[in-house]
Amino acid sequence: MNSWGDKFRVTIWGESHGTQVGVSIDGVPAGIALQEEDFLSDLGRRKAGGAGTTTRTESDYPHIVSGIYEGHTTGAPLTIVFENENTRSGDYRNLVAHPRPSHADWVAQRKWNGYNDPRGGGHFSGRLTLGLVAAGVVAKKILGDEITFSTNIIEIGGEQDSQKFEQIIEQARMAQDSVGGVVECRATGIEVGWGEPFFDSAESLIAHLMFSVPAVKGVEFGDGFASSRMRGSQNNDMIIDSEGHTSTNHAGGIVGGITNGSDLIVRAAIKPTASISQEQVTFNFEHGQVEPLVIKGRHDVCIALRAAVVVEAVIAMALAELKLRA
Amino acid sequence: MNSWGDKFRVTIWGESHGTQVGVSIDGVPAGIALQEEDFLSDLGRRKAGGAGTTTRTESDYPHIVSGIYEGHTTGAPLTIVFENENTRSGDYRNLVAHPRPSHADWVAQRKWNGYNDPRGGGHFSGRLTLGLVAAGVVAKKILGDEITFSTNIIEIGGEQDSQKFEQIIEQARMAQDSVGGVVECRATGIEVGWGEPFFDSAESLIAHLMFSVPAVKGVEFGDGFASSRMRGSQNNDMIIDSEGHTSTNHAGGIVGGITNGSDLIVRAAIKPTASISQEQVTFNFEHGQVEPLVIKGRHDVCIALRAAVVVEAVIAMALAELKLRA
Amino acid sequence: MNSWGDKFRVTIWGESHGTQVGVSIDGVPAGIALQEEDFLSDLGRRKAGGAGTTTRTESDYPHIVSGIYEGHTTGAPLTIVFENENTRSGDYRNLVAHPRPSHADWVAQRKWNGYNDPRGGGHFSGRLTLGLVAAGVVAKKILGDEITFSTNIIEIGGEQDSQKFEQIIEQARMAQDSVGGVVECRATGIEVGWGEPFFDSAESLIAHLMFSVPAVKGVEFGDGFASSRMRGSQNNDMIIDSEGHTSTNHAGGIVGGITNGSDLIVRAAIKPTASISQEQVTFNFEHGQVEPLVIKGRHDVCIALRAAVVVEAVIAMALAELKLRA
Amino acid sequence: MNSWGDKFRVTIWGESHGTQVGVSIDGVPAGIALQEEDFLSDLGRRKAGGAGTTTRTESDYPHIVSGIYEGHTTGAPLTIVFENENTRSGDYRNLVAHPRPSHADWVAQRKWNGYNDPRGGGHFSGRLTLGLVAAGVVAKKILGDEITFSTNIIEIGGEQDSQKFEQIIEQARMAQDSVGGVVECRATGIEVGWGEPFFDSAESLIAHLMFSVPAVKGVEFGDGFASSRMRGSQNNDMIIDSEGHTSTNHAGGIVGGITNGSDLIVRAAIKPTASISQEQVTFNFEHGQVEPLVIKGRHDVCIALRAAVVVEAVIAMALAELKLRA
Repeated sequence: MNSWGDKFRVTIWGESHGTQVGVSIDGVPAGIALQEEDFLSDLGRRKAGGAGTTTRTESDYPHIVSGIYEGHTTGAPLTIVFENENTRSGDYRNLVAHPRPSHADWVAQRKWNGYNDPRGGGHFSGRLTLGLVAAGVVAKKILGDEITFSTNIIEIGGEQDSQKFEQIIEQARMAQDSVGGVVECRATGIEVGWGEPFFDSAESLIAHLMFSVPAVKGVEFGDGFASSRMRGSQNNDMIIDSEGHTSTNHAGGIVGGITNGSDLIVRAAIKPTASISQEQVTFNFEHGQVEPLVIKGRHDVCIALRAAVVVEAVIAMALAELKLRA
Repeated sequence: MNSWGDKFRVTIWGESHGTQVGVSIDGVPAGIALQEEDFLSDLGRRKAGGAGTTTRTESDYPHIVSGIYEGHTTGAPLTIVFENENTRSGDYRNLVAHPRPSHADWVAQRKWNGYNDPRGGGHFSGRLTLGLVAAGVVAKKILGDEITFSTNIIEIGGEQDSQKFEQIIEQARMAQDSVGGVVECRATGIEVGWGEPFFDSAESLIAHLMFSVPAVKGVEFGDGFASSRMRGSQNNDMIIDSEGHTSTNHAGGIVGGITNGSDLIVRAAIKPTASISQEQVTFNFEHGQVEPLVIKGRHDVCIALRAAVVVEAVIAMALAELKLRA
Repeated sequence: MNSWGDKFRVTIWGESHGTQVGVSIDGVPAGIALQEEDFLSDLGRRKAGGAGTTTRTESDYPHIVSGIYEGHTTGAPLTIVFENENTRSGDYRNLVAHPRPSHADWVAQRKWNGYNDPRGGGHFSGRLTLGLVAAGVVAKKILGDEITFSTNIIEIGGEQDSQKFEQIIEQARMAQDSVGGVVECRATGIEVGWGEPFFDSAESLIAHLMFSVPAVKGVEFGDGFASSRMRGSQNNDMIIDSEGHTSTNHAGGIVGGITNGSDLIVRAAIKPTASISQEQVTFNFEHGQVEPLVIKGRHDVCIALRAAVVVEAVIAMALAELKLRA
Repeated sequence: MNSWGDKFRVTIWGESHGTQVGVSIDGVPAGIALQEEDFLSDLGRRKAGGAGTTTRTESDYPHIVSGIYEGHTTGAPLTIVFENENTRSGDYRNLVAHPRPSHADWVAQRKWNGYNDPRGGGHFSGRLTLGLVAAGVVAKKILGDEITFSTNIIEIGGEQDSQKFEQIIEQARMAQDSVGGVVECRATGIEVGWGEPFFDSAESLIAHLMFSVPAVKGVEFGDGFASSRMRGSQNNDMIIDSEGHTSTNHAGGIVGGITNGSDLIVRAAIKPTASISQEQVTFNFEHGQVEPLVIKGRHDVCIALRAAVVVEAVIAMALAELKLRA
């Protein structure tokens, strides 16, 4: 299903080469000042154009078609659509016969008996993340100014020195290849008490949405996998005052599924872009044999760059849901 | 909320020192042969007693109180309860005043205004995972014999050589400390086509439940965080035959949120047990100052040992949900 | 599925002749004073024993097995179980072969391929409404003292003069027959603003639960079916003061799906008990022909009498859900 | 929330005087032939223009903006939008100060602190039912040709002779008034076994959606309220053959919450249109006193006429959900 959330419910639709992609956001409290311009900054962060991103330029302007009256949210569903301008009708038969490795081309065909829209990845397209970014903007409005986000690429191709990122990406591009990366998001100012033990733990909700973002293959909170290598005496966070502040934050802001007021720290492992320019040898279902495949077009060398704002957006969505439940 | 799932809905309840813990499982197809003995093997894997686990012995016998008729599931909710025998009424006031570091004691008090049951962690107790393990057993029945699970501790305290695990645990125990670990679960025999892009991706559902398991702080699929350090040419899985088999399985069996027929590979980072025997210095809310705290009783040195079957159980739960949706 | 509610989530289980029936109630705010005695009054109203009800005496004592600590709700699931004492193992094969008219016997067999528990109606048993009544008691605690319920049988067998009810029931009993009735519930003190237009209208939530009560075949709000015979000038409720009070209450307290502060007025049509003592001629699936059937045992002549408190309970459940959402 | 359904999930948005109203339908199986023309017949039945309906002419053309590829559904969300052409920006301040009786004007203001869109009823507008009718068309495609619907106005203003309907409406129009009516829908060809006891009874799902339709104030199945006046011997439906056919259909096709293969029979009581031309005396919040109010514009004298197809649509929606769950 393409909707998520009980109190902050987000519904997305669209295909890469269809008429539009869109998002409807329900559960938004009435009275929040909001206009189309408010979306431009985060949408810009998602845009192609920087180093390691595609040169496809598309109109990502957010058209609000419901839920706003006189510059404020009304309590009714807030719906935002993005026109697909840069679509080309072309011959996608080859893509059906010769599915791209590590893309959803083949599983989608199997799942939907060949009725899926294959053009440009169809409903799997990264363009659908426009709706997630938009929902993230609305989520941040709900969270208010007290909560601030800091999201960074902390690793690319295994390198943690950010000054070398550009070079690593350029080397991958030269090699007609791609690279993965790690995105870290910190959110400051979260109240104590959001989330629950077990199924509705704060980690569960956040991770659920993180793994909804294409290319995310790992998620960790606080020290995450590193904590599995620690002893308890190293990993425990001592409470040091009557406000519940802790001397350290190995937990990443969540204990027992519940926020403890410390910074939320989340990291996502982003796999290297599956589309690479170099020739790959994979099965051609029409010809019934393994054959070389060259994927045409321009692709993001490092999708982690554009994924960062999407990761931040879905974390904001999860936090808005948690806040509205609390 | 303490329930999860649309088609395979699991509801849990209970407290560490209450009358019972239980689980009700709805959506189980009628006609599955099932009896109480079927639960004993997995419940035994969760039991304390091995190296690195507590010596508390408790009756973990599963009493089926609804949903079975003449040895088969009926289509009505299957409810299983476990009596709490080893409870002691004692003075828990100290625990309220002096909350244990990296436990939910303090956040629970804040969230529920002091009305939470503090005894033995109350509703946060690991005893609640009895219900998860039981639900996992039922989930496996739904998945059938074609799907097999192999779950292992692949790392303890940073060490990957399993022959050294016992020694590492013993050293931690000697140091009145605890250690974390990594659990890996592989599931073989999964059909192509379970899961969806975005919110209902197979990874989202599985990760959601994985982070419901106490002590899990990281989750990754396939190469996970390692894939973020690869190039696309290294990470891509080439399709090699008409059945969609791939030459490699970096993806861990899920592409675009959808299972591709390869083995599902999931890893969970388990933090070191928060309860350690050595003295910790943390805030005493009654006295208004930081004070030494000694946690009494026996605790698991390495909770990862007992968590393994719980991790496997929730993966089975997620897969049962995905199968019933497909 | 056997659970309902997003914020006030009720899960029920059990069979007529199983070990127990039970209910787990999630989303109950912490700090509500609650003990087993609080349930006895409403459970007593549901009990058999009055005119027109069965003579089966059963222990309906509510055992709280989770969610209470020191006499107050904890915020964790509140679970209540009822032992089934008056069960008899007997020969139910006849019931399978010769399903009772207007009971679920046959559809249940078809739906669950014969694996359903047929004993005493199995999971369809009216005993399951014990859990609903218990949930209703908890719901009323959440609603608080400001909201009061008045629930009455306003019609039996088409007769509206309550002084004749006993006689009508006695006549039906003499005829080895049963009679239907109409239950009306009024709830006073509801705030303005609960519910939403369309899918989550207050009427939708209430009616959803009303039709979950066995034997309910019609539901109406305010003037209901009578309003369909009116003109707008007769049916409209004029606002008469700054508090939004209306001169009349044809709407039954809900406008546009939202409560308007007037009394909630709901009526349920209860069909006559399907089990009657007189001989019925219906199909015997074993013999492959229509044959006389005599249903043994004692049955409620007018189930509307016992349904009244169940109707009130589910209305309270819906209102608690609406209040917690607001 | 403005979405409904687990397997057939419908999300609606829009306002009377906004840019558009729309609907996104998720869970539609792939491979169903569908085009915009398929919607025109049912949308036409909803259209104003017949006797007793408004003369407002609006473009109700359904633009499919996602979920279709080469004339078939893809398995991705199917989204349909309708442009709002006939909107007028005007002075709605009067409507805010002087809310219309038996409309949602006042409760909406209270609920959303005055931030609701008041123009033409805003999000409460009957225009939102365009999305319901569209969803109903898709639902019928899922149900297939075996299931047929027959929906009729069986009563207007208390009159059951359909030949007098036109006259009754004309008399009401002359009196600057409106009239209510009763819609009956019969669906033939439904399989045995859809629905469940208790919360997910077929009646619960259908009634939930019926009460989502504006102006519906009562819902009954089979003999409904009439069955409450019967004896069991009159109301019971005897099974007469091995296919489970019954000699009568007092139950309206549902027993124990489960469809039994007989025709589904549902009736909805539609209240008279709240907007009437004659002067009404109601509270003016700006002036702080009761004052005469004249509602301008043209209104449906008998909204039951246009509601019929909406009632049929939501029944189809509920049945599609039930079928996809089965």
